[in-house]
Amino acid sequence: MKDKAEAEAEANFTTRNVYTDWITDNIRYCDLDPNGHVNNGAINAFFEDGRVQFRMDRMGHYSEDILTGFVLVKFSVEYLKALNYPGSIDVGTLVSNIGRTSYLLKQGLFRDEECIAIAEVVTVCFNKETEKAELIDDDLRGILEKAQKIIAL
Amino acid sequence: MKDKAEAEAEANFTTRNVYTDWITDNIRYCDLDPNGHVNNGAINAFFEDGRVQFRMDRMGHYSEDILTGFVLVKFSVEYLKALNYPGSIDVGTLVSNIGRTSYLLKQGLFRDEECIAIAEVVTVCFNKETEKAELIDDDLRGILEKAQKIIAL
Amino acid sequence: MKDKAEAEAEANFTTRNVYTDWITDNIRYCDLDPNGHVNNGAINAFFEDGRVQFRMDRMGHYSEDILTGFVLVKFSVEYLKALNYPGSIDVGTLVSNIGRTSYLLKQGLFRDEECIAIAEVVTVCFNKETEKAELIDDDLRGILEKAQKIIAL
Amino acid sequence: MKDKAEAEAEANFTTRNVYTDWITDNIRYCDLDPNGHVNNGAINAFFEDGRVQFRMDRMGHYSEDILTGFVLVKFSVEYLKALNYPGSIDVGTLVSNIGRTSYLLKQGLFRDEECIAIAEVVTVCFNKETEKAELIDDDLRGILEKAQKIIAL
Repeated sequence: MKDKAEAEAEANFTTRNVYTDWITDNIRYCDLDPNGHVNNGAINAFFEDGRVQFRMDRMGHYSEDILTGFVLVKFSVEYLKALNYPGSIDVGTLVSNIGRTSYLLKQGLFRDEECIAIAEVVTVCFNKETEKAELIDDDLRGILEKAQKIIAL
Repeated sequence: MKDKAEAEAEANFTTRNVYTDWITDNIRYCDLDPNGHVNNGAINAFFEDGRVQFRMDRMGHYSEDILTGFVLVKFSVEYLKALNYPGSIDVGTLVSNIGRTSYLLKQGLFRDEECIAIAEVVTVCFNKETEKAELIDDDLRGILEKAQKIIAL
Repeated sequence: MKDKAEAEAEANFTTRNVYTDWITDNIRYCDLDPNGHVNNGAINAFFEDGRVQFRMDRMGHYSEDILTGFVLVKFSVEYLKALNYPGSIDVGTLVSNIGRTSYLLKQGLFRDEECIAIAEVVTVCFNKETEKAELIDDDLRGILEKAQKIIAL
Repeated sequence: MKDKAEAEAEANFTTRNVYTDWITDNIRYCDLDPNGHVNNGAINAFFEDGRVQFRMDRMGHYSEDILTGFVLVKFSVEYLKALNYPGSIDVGTLVSNIGRTSYLLKQGLFRDEECIAIAEVVTVCFNKETEKAELIDDDLRGILEKAQKIIAL
């Protein structure tokens, strides 16, 4: 259902070199499903760890409770390959788009050079007191732009 | 970033009455994140339970290892509201589209009448021996069509 | 390694009627391990839910952050039977012993009348400011004594 | 409720140097509970990973489905310290006792030199066809004895 341009653009996110920020996670035995593969819940948790580390590395100085000041509003993941126990994986993250109150991350989960899954994540800046989205301020915009990957598709 | 038609169409999936198949799950204390909200991993697991039950109810007679003959290739979720402990939630599922080798499910997670999250899921029929997608046969197509929700958007 | 008296005493905890407080939890597909059985992590989470509910029911009025004012210091579980998906289970809890700064709970996990696992849990009353154990005060002792099951072994 | 000898003996298991087999696991953001500490479920999963790795390292050649031929019948854990995100931990494992059909492992979970939790685990050798415990044969006994830590308490 994708056209050719979309397919080509997406293909880029299955290669390690597009990502700017990285973490390594290890697979646990309890991640296995009845087929003996790592379950989707674990894969989603690996992506979450990539995002949390991204925020700590890039925004750690920006706010004391930076880990709780954002709300994940949309998460899309494509599962490309099965993943087996034991071992470790790497998650790459990049800023793909910066909007008024939200920003878009792309993420890739790799076992060595093999791409296991890719994800797209919309995060909204959220004011916990008003419980409303709020504008990305200049400081935060600067941080995100610095991390933004300009990809010629 | 959505146009009006898309927004209206999606809005339908936040109401209980569009869904054909239902499960009830309960929240566990270990589902809570440091903000005291149910974490996204638990929400994704609730959607998974909805899909597994859908397959057992609708396809239980179709194949002995019906639970392992499909592969989830794409999962997209929109988180609309925070969810608190304790309590139970309901997940509704419907067949939205049937392709040649894959089908599309829509799912909604509700606390009473309140929609907490909606999801879209692409599942591919998968031959474990050849490790390739295979055509949805007439039997399975019949099952899916019976479950398909024709929604006038 | 148990003597006869101990063995007989423990046997009691595999019957539903000794327990005073109950919860019902449902099994999730993601709880399954590669053998197709519910994994130990899920079973331990069911016991946790029984304890949290016990505290909310019995001590909800006692302190605003009653869920965080105790620390689990010891957890022992005996896994008696395999548990399968799907379905729901019940966890029974009773107060077995009350000490100066800690109390002992016994718990049993049941599928219908069948006992799947039993647990023993030592919880210490904990002052978050001093980070030290503190005496169980008269109010709390009263609550615990009310919930205590006097079992003639 | 412990006498002095028992207390001293246990103290040994909070030092790294008693353990023979080691793994390293990393903490995930989703392991955090509402207090911001790593939850007990994650700690128990770390111990599980230590046991699985122990079996793969020591018994990998012994049987093709060595990971499924044993049943955990008893798990006891003492939680000594709170554990925070992010970071990694090490789990040490040793064989403490070898019986006729079961063996006893001791495990310690460490953050650097600090002991976070210790566990004691009874595993029974299990025949999946008869669903009964079976004698530890000479091969397996040899493997376990080789891994057994003789500790002068």
